[in-house]
Amino acid sequence: MTPAAECRARAALLQATLAAQGLDGALLLHGTEVFYFTGTRQNAVLWLPVAGEPTLLVRKSLPRARAESPLADLRPFPPSRELPEVLGGARRVGLTFDVVPLSVHAFWARALPGVELADISAPLRWQRSVKSPWELDRLRESGDVLCVPYRELPFYLRAGMREIDLAAEVELRLRQAGNEGSARVRGFNQDFFMGLAVAGDSAAARSAFDGPVTGRGLSPAAPLGASVQPIARDVPVLVDYTALVGGYVTDMSRIGVAGTLAPELERAFATALRIQDELVRLLRPGAVPSKLWARARAMTEAAGLEHNFMGQPGDQARFVGHGVGLELDEWPVLAEGFDEPMREGQVVALEPKFVFPGMGVVGIENTWAVGPRGGERLTRLDDAIVRI
Amino acid sequence: MTPAAECRARAALLQATLAAQGLDGALLLHGTEVFYFTGTRQNAVLWLPVAGEPTLLVRKSLPRARAESPLADLRPFPPSRELPEVLGGARRVGLTFDVVPLSVHAFWARALPGVELADISAPLRWQRSVKSPWELDRLRESGDVLCVPYRELPFYLRAGMREIDLAAEVELRLRQAGNEGSARVRGFNQDFFMGLAVAGDSAAARSAFDGPVTGRGLSPAAPLGASVQPIARDVPVLVDYTALVGGYVTDMSRIGVAGTLAPELERAFATALRIQDELVRLLRPGAVPSKLWARARAMTEAAGLEHNFMGQPGDQARFVGHGVGLELDEWPVLAEGFDEPMREGQVVALEPKFVFPGMGVVGIENTWAVGPRGGERLTRLDDAIVRI
Repeated sequence: MTPAAECRARAALLQATLAAQGLDGALLLHGTEVFYFTGTRQNAVLWLPVAGEPTLLVRKSLPRARAESPLADLRPFPPSRELPEVLGGARRVGLTFDVVPLSVHAFWARALPGVELADISAPLRWQRSVKSPWELDRLRESGDVLCVPYRELPFYLRAGMREIDLAAEVELRLRQAGNEGSARVRGFNQDFFMGLAVAGDSAAARSAFDGPVTGRGLSPAAPLGASVQPIARDVPVLVDYTALVGGYVTDMSRIGVAGTLAPELERAFATALRIQDELVRLLRPGAVPSKLWARARAMTEAAGLEHNFMGQPGDQARFVGHGVGLELDEWPVLAEGFDEPMREGQVVALEPKFVFPGMGVVGIENTWAVGPRGGERLTRLDDAIVRI
Repeated sequence: MTPAAECRARAALLQATLAAQGLDGALLLHGTEVFYFTGTRQNAVLWLPVAGEPTLLVRKSLPRARAESPLADLRPFPPSRELPEVLGGARRVGLTFDVVPLSVHAFWARALPGVELADISAPLRWQRSVKSPWELDRLRESGDVLCVPYRELPFYLRAGMREIDLAAEVELRLRQAGNEGSARVRGFNQDFFMGLAVAGDSAAARSAFDGPVTGRGLSPAAPLGASVQPIARDVPVLVDYTALVGGYVTDMSRIGVAGTLAPELERAFATALRIQDELVRLLRPGAVPSKLWARARAMTEAAGLEHNFMGQPGDQARFVGHGVGLELDEWPVLAEGFDEPMREGQVVALEPKFVFPGMGVVGIENTWAVGPRGGERLTRLDDAIVRI
């Protein structure tokens, strides 16, 4: 359960943003935001005035929302005509334009005549990027669950098994360990299911997802992750999964191999580890994400691997890490354009990876908290290649 | 792969709608729509003019989109300033307002000055509700995959196992059989992960999801489906899962029990089977969904079970079936307000279920195609309770 003090602190931070933007309050409509401010993910809308107490309007289920949320004012969702009264004369109200569909916006615009609805997506994403000590504990728990299937990898990874059978074994262990489902992704159309188990050339396939590695998937309708391709000997197997525990996402990758890897791939893997070490050392308050991206690029160039870094030659992703928290695609991104210095408590998945068409993918991924002495590892497991 | 003739027929149908609404074309932005009209789910936008050939603008990955789609005109997504030219002077353009976020709409409004964007969600949902013979074949394949874990249920369902361990076993078998992930849900905030394995009182828990049964889930952040509660003897175990195969969703439920069920629950289960039989008999072109809902209600009242039908006493869902296809929450819904006669090729999951607080849930669910001789079963497996 989310403690009352967490909910109060989060509301107070957003209220300061609302005041600075001249807004009278915010309507939080998206499930992730409702959960963040209330501790419940029931079907509900949160009204947070710029000053004073929030009100949670619950469609389904009110008894469950009451049992889960420390908030004082939970009510049944009222008839639309009573909504202006709930907002008590507010004229300018914040909404997260990045996720709210047009038809939902139209409902609120009709229900609140004369009220101007303004976008608060960006400040709220920045607020959520900094995790409290309580949230970091949740992320540590999520990381511990995520390590379970990786620790057992030597017991079920076999040459000849299909990628999808490897995926099924990973997912079985994740669920048994308490994983709640697929990491939530905020981006429009960014379909995602739990993670990827991909090997050899299949791992180097191109697809829609905004990551360095996508895989073939099972059909054009689900073009991500494992395929029915059998896993060959002597090719890198990339296991790149997420955990979702108590709502919090962690993200990690390890490489396995049945047999041996080509020296070129071993060298690239060692380079990925060196990049990780360097970025972790720099992962302190004040570090600039775009500069960390530049540092990773420079190290890749020095190793002569720039054409394989973070994607296919000619088709590369332009980042080396991304925020995680309640969603998989949080801020900051370690990429050009992210020039705001990092803050203690931000959490990022660092994933230096190299793609070799025809051969496969090698690299490393762990989830880290930005801290005064560099990154704190939240996915606490050895980085070594799993050799069977 | 989606055949070219399918894509052509679907585009022609929407073009007729656009013409009737006085629209010059449609911009299909949502992944499900892009897939429906093109056969690929790469990151892309489809421009469909009211007359003539569609153009697919691909962000990532163009080579893969070319390999998957039978469309002739696939191009890299152009700079925004060139978008008006792609639309060739269109003034009124359709968009699916039910899923497109405000920020995505804002991008297109800026890119297409002077163009009026109009909502085409409803006609497109109605169009997609009627499946072609080719789509029905895909749904039969999806139903066959979905039956796999149910057929094996006697081999892994055990009293004393936790709900989450039962869920993990179902999901393992679904993935090994070729299930691509979680059924996609269109509704805003309708979080869903694969299905529910819930037993006894835990199955009767209230939660946010718009179904008759929700379960406790693993935490307030994921309040749906299996919990860590052990499965007792002599209580009904509800296994309610979906399959996603080639993009197509089927949905089914079966009841299991270790031991015996209370006579009250056995009677309710028999009533659910009778309601299913009656609705399947009526599931023909011309039948009215709201009347089927009324018929199910009347049968429930005759059996004295109206307070347990489709939810908790006092907290009941108001439907007995829902369309499925590329999404889990398609049209028609067998509910009040759905008065449009059904058409051959529509596909619905019928799910008469009874909730007994403190005891559990019994009922049945299968996916059916509307046909001239009543419903054709797409989830081809015996309905009987699995007794171990």
